[in-house]
Amino acid sequence: MSVALVGAGPGDPELITVGGLARVRAAELLVYDRLVGPGLVAAAPGDLVARDELTQAEVNALLVREGRRRFVVRLKGGDPFLFGRGGEEALALARAGVPFEVIPGVSSLTAVPAAAGIPVTHRGAASAVTAFAAHDVEALDADALARAPGTLVAFMGLAGLARLAERLIAAGLSAATPAAVVACGTTERQQVATAPLGAVARAAAGLPTPALVVIGDVVAVADELALARSAVA
Amino acid sequence: MSVALVGAGPGDPELITVGGLARVRAAELLVYDRLVGPGLVAAAPGDLVARDELTQAEVNALLVREGRRRFVVRLKGGDPFLFGRGGEEALALARAGVPFEVIPGVSSLTAVPAAAGIPVTHRGAASAVTAFAAHDVEALDADALARAPGTLVAFMGLAGLARLAERLIAAGLSAATPAAVVACGTTERQQVATAPLGAVARAAAGLPTPALVVIGDVVAVADELALARSAVA
Repeated sequence: MSVALVGAGPGDPELITVGGLARVRAAELLVYDRLVGPGLVAAAPGDLVARDELTQAEVNALLVREGRRRFVVRLKGGDPFLFGRGGEEALALARAGVPFEVIPGVSSLTAVPAAAGIPVTHRGAASAVTAFAAHDVEALDADALARAPGTLVAFMGLAGLARLAERLIAAGLSAATPAAVVACGTTERQQVATAPLGAVARAAAGLPTPALVVIGDVVAVADELALARSAVA
Repeated sequence: MSVALVGAGPGDPELITVGGLARVRAAELLVYDRLVGPGLVAAAPGDLVARDELTQAEVNALLVREGRRRFVVRLKGGDPFLFGRGGEEALALARAGVPFEVIPGVSSLTAVPAAAGIPVTHRGAASAVTAFAAHDVEALDADALARAPGTLVAFMGLAGLARLAERLIAAGLSAATPAAVVACGTTERQQVATAPLGAVARAAAGLPTPALVVIGDVVAVADELALARSAVA
């Protein structure tokens, strides 16, 4: 048998791909992330295992063991290969000789800002975007991030946001740079806080995770959209 | 009525979202990009307009005019908000008072490298990725790109690839950095060329567009995957 590494998308169950949903519906075993929508988990006809109770090594071993004898779907939030550790699982399967396929998903990188009206690239505002994992703020190369062309998008950046903003500003990014935090993006529980970089940590205080931090002139496009809509309403 | 700005994904018709396909199937008018799969265009029951015969201003005007009186789907390759000019169309619709929604899509950013076995982030190799538009190589900030943390992914970068590699190497990126060009990624016509950055333009000579250029240590993960697979085959 085989394993499918499937991206579930950012939270809204409509945002899984047609191919991804077909795999879920055929799954004899579904190994799913906590952040995957419950509606998607319910669509799997076979056995269920919640990934969050296992270490990554245990997940790899489970996929190898079960993938030898039945059709296993590893359903991940977002995209398997963008902060999804899909590469590690793919390598474990390849080394064990278990056939597998990767079905990409809609990443939070574009979908979560979009749900707040923010295009991560926009003519005149940004023709590049840098996505980075920000769970360990002190480990980041703040100089390189502050110089990166275009939009910055921090994954897992809410907990350390005050320090992240401080480091980026110390590295030369203007404290007036537009910034936003989008919590639980694309779901019914979505909340957005928008403020200049120097004030965004305070503005986002108390927001739940998962949250994406967006920094750059594209954040102002959301304001333009809202303004245009209210002007004609 | 209203307009839906829908991401079709990177080429494989299985990679549109469930929500995106539902909009296409309900479209009274479909305005589609050349790079969208013909199978998706055929799924639309109403009138069809190919976007590539129009300027962006004409597309905006068409969406506003038709969106006032019927359900229009603007179907774009990849994601509407990552090099998709969806922000411009959203602003035109907002300013005209035409209701619209954005349905994100699977971006080539993750899906095209994935189809070549490359995770754009990978533990130990890259915890960040910078995507940039490279149609105008001379306009790029090569210093900032060469310093960017993690993987580089160039959209529209094949035509100017020799000069892009030259500028990145002059800015300090090692000529030995693993690089790959994935042409027509996720489709039946997919072709991949892999080589160190200093030689990748020559290796990719003659490949068709659209093509994505991936630069960074994650490219070597594809080799590891292929090696592991062949070792057990």
